[in-house]
Amino acid sequence: MKILIIGAAGMIGRKLTERLAKDAKLGHEAIEKLILADVIAPTAVRAPGIEIEAHELDIVSEDAVSSLIAARPDLVFHLAAIVSGEAELDFDKGYAINLDGTRYLFDAIRREGQEQPYCPRVVFSSSIAVFGAPFPDKIGDEFFSTPKTSYGTQKAIGELLLSDYSRRGFFDGVGIRLPTICIRPGKPNKAASGFFSNILREPLVGQEAVLPVEENVRHWHASPRSAVGFLLHAATMDTAPLGVRRNLNMPGLSATVGEQIEALRRVAGKKAAALIRKARDPMVADMVDGWARDFDAQRATSLGFVADASFDDIIKAHIEDELGGTLP
Amino acid sequence: MKILIIGAAGMIGRKLTERLAKDAKLGHEAIEKLILADVIAPTAVRAPGIEIEAHELDIVSEDAVSSLIAARPDLVFHLAAIVSGEAELDFDKGYAINLDGTRYLFDAIRREGQEQPYCPRVVFSSSIAVFGAPFPDKIGDEFFSTPKTSYGTQKAIGELLLSDYSRRGFFDGVGIRLPTICIRPGKPNKAASGFFSNILREPLVGQEAVLPVEENVRHWHASPRSAVGFLLHAATMDTAPLGVRRNLNMPGLSATVGEQIEALRRVAGKKAAALIRKARDPMVADMVDGWARDFDAQRATSLGFVADASFDDIIKAHIEDELGGTLP
Repeated sequence: MKILIIGAAGMIGRKLTERLAKDAKLGHEAIEKLILADVIAPTAVRAPGIEIEAHELDIVSEDAVSSLIAARPDLVFHLAAIVSGEAELDFDKGYAINLDGTRYLFDAIRREGQEQPYCPRVVFSSSIAVFGAPFPDKIGDEFFSTPKTSYGTQKAIGELLLSDYSRRGFFDGVGIRLPTICIRPGKPNKAASGFFSNILREPLVGQEAVLPVEENVRHWHASPRSAVGFLLHAATMDTAPLGVRRNLNMPGLSATVGEQIEALRRVAGKKAAALIRKARDPMVADMVDGWARDFDAQRATSLGFVADASFDDIIKAHIEDELGGTLP
Repeated sequence: MKILIIGAAGMIGRKLTERLAKDAKLGHEAIEKLILADVIAPTAVRAPGIEIEAHELDIVSEDAVSSLIAARPDLVFHLAAIVSGEAELDFDKGYAINLDGTRYLFDAIRREGQEQPYCPRVVFSSSIAVFGAPFPDKIGDEFFSTPKTSYGTQKAIGELLLSDYSRRGFFDGVGIRLPTICIRPGKPNKAASGFFSNILREPLVGQEAVLPVEENVRHWHASPRSAVGFLLHAATMDTAPLGVRRNLNMPGLSATVGEQIEALRRVAGKKAAALIRKARDPMVADMVDGWARDFDAQRATSLGFVADASFDDIIKAHIEDELGGTLP
């Protein structure tokens, strides 16, 4: 089978690419070709027996997107997006990439099918940013989308298009609303949610991290490994039970910052936990106050999506996947 | 004040225009100018003291929309849409008018405000078609949008854009999800929902009407008079309590077909009710089965929107507004 990953150079895109290259099959089907596309050149990946094609392109170019689809991939992962902060700062860019780019992709698939039958699986990475406070304690599967960011608005629109194009038979879409990814590998970034990862990742390698909120702050998490698992399950699941309701709240782990720190202490010891320095940042604390804390992701769970079992597991997965299996 | 009505030649657009022309004011403000726009030339309206401007234009033309906004109306009613059936048959046309046209309008307002401050009230007519079965018995204010038509998808996207553009301060938007309009004046049309009106309107003037579904079918209704009332209230209400949740389920009247017929019998007599001929149409019955039956429109009601009190009232309003106040 041929697989196209749009947004292949992002953190999740790279991990998904590596996993597919390693498995060399998806479900029961051998992978013949991986087409990697991103606005920055996707990094090469070793995959004996798989043809790899890498494209540096912008999905705001309708022609570029059409040329990717002309290869008629059996499966398309659409992970490309301008992130929340940037979409808020640059209104036009956010709508151009997150809305127009998504529509170009969906329409390129539709047009490809007008020539001769074509109906690939499309897996779309959406976000819990489609929800906006005030929330119930646990957000249910039928809670409405009232985003409080342009990014969340664009993701919610992508979801609606995904459902309609699937209903009309242009492709077979699944939208997955990812929890906040924790522990996000790499350097600390400027995302307001970054501290959820920083307070674990940095102490694990003996470095200090700053906690800008109170320990009772509750949030909704999934490890990068789980996120890749969600994408693979969405790519292979039976979509018949979805009907027109193609977008799913992914299961995750609801934990307070205090519970995260307890897990760090259990896995890496008191010294690691002592590297977290509290320095309340009222701006960050205010933003986090409007974020989803917990979900009841019954539907996705019943459809076979599996979340991390504990924060201890999330930390151990990070040690295995990013630190070579042992603490320094 | 200057008021722009886009979609002024439609049934609701005409009734809104007539009402504004008659009142000559909105809230406490005198109306100086009414700008009427539609893809078919809006009919003239008599309004002494009000300047009337009529434009025959297509909102798929970005320039045409911008030229309307260049007049900087204080209030914009966006009622233009390709209806459900046509948007389902002509995919491109539905998206072009209902999605792109709406976005051109919203962006024209945003760009107008970039030159010098401009933040009009925008009232957007959305639809209960943003919801798709299965439903709860009563659809609440926080039920999610999973439309089963391209029209419903396009309306749901318009709602998301309306909220985001309002949140960013580009305009002050209110989206209202209208119930099915009953009694729709004029000739029977081909809409699958047409029979809800036909079975009252035709017998009231001594003509036969066909009922294609069982009498226990329940649906959600509002009179044209109420719909105009909703638009006027949305145009003048305090929008501060809305927050980012700019789209409201309008209150309505939930009634079975049997209750509609009972009301007809009370208002117009047994002879009128006897003109309804039952001829079950399985295709119509199937479609209607997937439609919303009842709502708990608490939020809109608490914000001052008022529905029809009974089907007797709906029929009496039709007799007053369309039949000169008496039955033939």
